[in-house]
Amino acid sequence: MKKIEEYVRSIPDFPEEGIIFRDVTSVLQDAEGLHLAIDSMQELIKDVDCDVIVGPESRGFIFGVPIAYNLRKAFIPVRKKGKLPCETIEKEYDLEYGTAIIEMHRDSIKPGQKVIIIDDLMATGGTIEAIVSLIEELGGEVVKIVFLMELEGLKGRDKLQGYNVESVIRYSGK
Amino acid sequence: MKKIEEYVRSIPDFPEEGIIFRDVTSVLQDAEGLHLAIDSMQELIKDVDCDVIVGPESRGFIFGVPIAYNLRKAFIPVRKKGKLPCETIEKEYDLEYGTAIIEMHRDSIKPGQKVIIIDDLMATGGTIEAIVSLIEELGGEVVKIVFLMELEGLKGRDKLQGYNVESVIRYSGK
Repeated sequence: MKKIEEYVRSIPDFPEEGIIFRDVTSVLQDAEGLHLAIDSMQELIKDVDCDVIVGPESRGFIFGVPIAYNLRKAFIPVRKKGKLPCETIEKEYDLEYGTAIIEMHRDSIKPGQKVIIIDDLMATGGTIEAIVSLIEELGGEVVKIVFLMELEGLKGRDKLQGYNVESVIRYSGK
Repeated sequence: MKKIEEYVRSIPDFPEEGIIFRDVTSVLQDAEGLHLAIDSMQELIKDVDCDVIVGPESRGFIFGVPIAYNLRKAFIPVRKKGKLPCETIEKEYDLEYGTAIIEMHRDSIKPGQKVIIIDDLMATGGTIEAIVSLIEELGGEVVKIVFLMELEGLKGRDKLQGYNVESVIRYSGK
């Protein structure tokens, strides 16, 4: 059986020189790769009690919703500013150049709910740090954060100290 | 048991006056709503033979991936221009104001493959028409198109004549 790492296509110098892009579409476009990716992420939370799954636009949707479906949990999307129709809370965070704003619906998480965050890739950790802050502002408790892939060289874990973070694939570089 | 329609929150005058926004996040943020939505869409394709599921960024990911997982099929994302790292084909299409460009990886669909397109909502049908055109350019055969919701007043079906189109929920208005 192929290992999950073997389904990931690596593209040098995308989107800019010096970056190795880890392409998740090559995993998805193979039925066995897709199944293995979702099962492997789900394995990391099999003993974790949670109420809702949270995932950021748009690749967090790819893995978050099937896991929510399989575990019969709610799924809460985190979106870029302006896309959610009801009352939201928002958080601005730093990108390499400039900043971005993400939003969640104010009624999406109830105080005391246990939350698992799912995303495809941890790079610098800036997005996830902002999501943790929004969840906690709503009174939720982040019980686990799971990625398919992690770029250890970017030290995203430094921003998430004290949280239970696991990744299926860990790349030592950037 | 609640019907799927009852999970959809309707928001008047969003994103602009005169539009009733059908909010899919209210479906997702209830574990039973999420389950029912995916099961209802899947019911519409249970007798359809297919090789791959295609879904557009970003709400097509929400329903397309769990269905691909459940049916053990590949999932092919359609993305806005500039987000896919390998060689792509693209299609420009009209929006209410201006145009948009979507892309698929050139190697994502092989000639002769049977394709089901999944999305959350059919409005004017412009995006789906563009996706059909990309799939056919790659040699794929669109065997079914399934939406959770359809706004019949916008006549999206007029753009998809000759295709097998079904929606779980049909709203008569816009």
